[in-house]
Amino acid sequence: MNLPESVLLAQRHGRIRATLDSLGVDALIVTEPANIRYLSNHVGSAGVLVVARDAVHLLIDFRYQTAVRALQDSSSACPGLRMWDVPGSYDEALVSCLTEIAVSAVAFEAMHMSVARHEWLTRTLSARGAGITLRASVEVIEQARMLKDAAEIVMLRQAAARLEPVVAAAVAAVRQGAVERQIAGVIEASLREAGFDRPAFDTIVASGPNSALPHYRAGNRVLTQGDLVVLDFGGVLGGYCSDLTRTVAVGPPEPEALRVHTAVLEAQQAAIAAVRPGIEASSIDSAARDVLEGHGLGEAFGHGTGHGLGLDVHELPRIARPRADISPVTLAPGMVFTIEPGAYRAGWGGVRIEDDVLVTETGCDVLTTSRRDLQTR
Amino acid sequence: MNLPESVLLAQRHGRIRATLDSLGVDALIVTEPANIRYLSNHVGSAGVLVVARDAVHLLIDFRYQTAVRALQDSSSACPGLRMWDVPGSYDEALVSCLTEIAVSAVAFEAMHMSVARHEWLTRTLSARGAGITLRASVEVIEQARMLKDAAEIVMLRQAAARLEPVVAAAVAAVRQGAVERQIAGVIEASLREAGFDRPAFDTIVASGPNSALPHYRAGNRVLTQGDLVVLDFGGVLGGYCSDLTRTVAVGPPEPEALRVHTAVLEAQQAAIAAVRPGIEASSIDSAARDVLEGHGLGEAFGHGTGHGLGLDVHELPRIARPRADISPVTLAPGMVFTIEPGAYRAGWGGVRIEDDVLVTETGCDVLTTSRRDLQTR
Repeated sequence: MNLPESVLLAQRHGRIRATLDSLGVDALIVTEPANIRYLSNHVGSAGVLVVARDAVHLLIDFRYQTAVRALQDSSSACPGLRMWDVPGSYDEALVSCLTEIAVSAVAFEAMHMSVARHEWLTRTLSARGAGITLRASVEVIEQARMLKDAAEIVMLRQAAARLEPVVAAAVAAVRQGAVERQIAGVIEASLREAGFDRPAFDTIVASGPNSALPHYRAGNRVLTQGDLVVLDFGGVLGGYCSDLTRTVAVGPPEPEALRVHTAVLEAQQAAIAAVRPGIEASSIDSAARDVLEGHGLGEAFGHGTGHGLGLDVHELPRIARPRADISPVTLAPGMVFTIEPGAYRAGWGGVRIEDDVLVTETGCDVLTTSRRDLQTR
Repeated sequence: MNLPESVLLAQRHGRIRATLDSLGVDALIVTEPANIRYLSNHVGSAGVLVVARDAVHLLIDFRYQTAVRALQDSSSACPGLRMWDVPGSYDEALVSCLTEIAVSAVAFEAMHMSVARHEWLTRTLSARGAGITLRASVEVIEQARMLKDAAEIVMLRQAAARLEPVVAAAVAAVRQGAVERQIAGVIEASLREAGFDRPAFDTIVASGPNSALPHYRAGNRVLTQGDLVVLDFGGVLGGYCSDLTRTVAVGPPEPEALRVHTAVLEAQQAAIAAVRPGIEASSIDSAARDVLEGHGLGEAFGHGTGHGLGLDVHELPRIARPRADISPVTLAPGMVFTIEPGAYRAGWGGVRIEDDVLVTETGCDVLTTSRRDLQTR
């Protein structure tokens, strides 16, 4: 379990290189920042990585070069890394690099590279007579990232565990007269205090009718008696994300609020109980959906049941209804995702309960542990 | 100056529609979230907008529909908006919409649409015999967004002004023994308290040698005597970003630190003094760069002088050295951007000073006002 980071990175490189043959290419151009980090430990909004058979080329401008040199002098160094200076345009630098390392066919990330960038690269490589062909590839690294390695699991467990005091602070901040924004402030301060690098996404504090909006953030509404309050937040620790939702009542809940909360919790627990290797991710969604439909809340549950967690707060696998245009995913040990069914009625309010799970050999570990019953404040 | 929001939105639609002819299309597909917000007031990570000649079509899934209906019932309603339900794939819904509204040529945002999405849309439109051609367009909306309208300027002025107490809190938090992360926490709590929706980007607190890394964030380093500390942060208010940097000394600064700070401040003031309508954006960069070169710090200034501010924290115009592959921009009243020269030496440290300016008819207004001398803590 305590492999040095360089060994883990080399294993990741090995998995990507194994796909180069099936893609019929000599190298893969990586432009998506989280994918670059996954393969190099380089963190930043800029940079292009080229995974070739014998080296990993990182093209980077002045602003990040000192950081990359420090990384390479550390125990987190990326094996086989060669740094290329980018004095101006990243695209120009990429053409120079590809020409100099003499590849003939190169894959690129078709879901991340823009049409404009692809058009420029194709045109320029052709004009220079470089004899280099670009080939589209889809989710090569994202598929590899679904299966977390030992170091990633350690970090994801910690990121989930550290939410505990934050949940306590969040629930304690809910009270009649409090403003949504203030509660979001308490949550974010508590995330920092718990050691997180930053919030994983814009904190959601959705009260009363706002709780019916699954993607509301936090506004100026003042909490009043009878409100349901959806608290949805997460933190990033060492690059890895956690994500949790609890729904709290202000004052004694009306019977319908309690009924909906009970149904959502039942759906969530059914989904968690269904997790095991070998089944399709969509069956976890069905497990939650069936329960809510049984309570007459099928229509009220308009989103998917969950999403993968890792370097991104939304990544593969997708835990949702099957879709003709998306390949199904079979669950396997090492996958980490959220389970977060909800029920929403416009104008009335909503309930969502979310935890993070890790697929194990026999079922799953629930990484987030705070109590899930409807707390009253 | 107090035009209703619907009138401002209609003006924005008008400017985009005026470009449809020159693009030779009937409509423009907008996929970039900030561009969607600019044209519709819809805020969210999902959604596709189609600006046609007679209507603005917003394709949106369940999660955001209640919010869109509330928006349309408010004074911020988007004129001419038609909402389309997206039950599954956004791409499928887009094909249905384009077919139903019977366009023949449609532009898309080539810098934002991925190769994979474009390939699917092209293939599917062709397979359905829809008779619809997709045409690449570049920065149509980004160009329009460079010139802020009255409502945007009000918001940008406020977003900058509200940084004042945050700067005071940030500087006050700098002291020997403090940890970078704690100071970042103080800054982010202060941003909330000042009424910002959220930080505009990951807060930077870079102390001692870390201050030499222009894109460092905030880590576990403890501040010590003699450190320079770069504090770089901003907030989002009503969607609009502010961005400010000050550099503070822990204990009496060494003479070299004071010399570098004085040079950077001189460069920044020279750049601010150079701002006026009619000149090229790159000449603002030259104004700063010339001063730093005169102080022997040309090599130490490895990034551009500034960037546009608006719905994005980095947008047009680019205030940097001219580049062959990027069209030059002539400054005009209503543009808002940062001016943030710096000087960095690996291992030693760095200085950066950043303010936000609005181009006026005769020069510029500096929107951020906190003192700029080297404060000692």
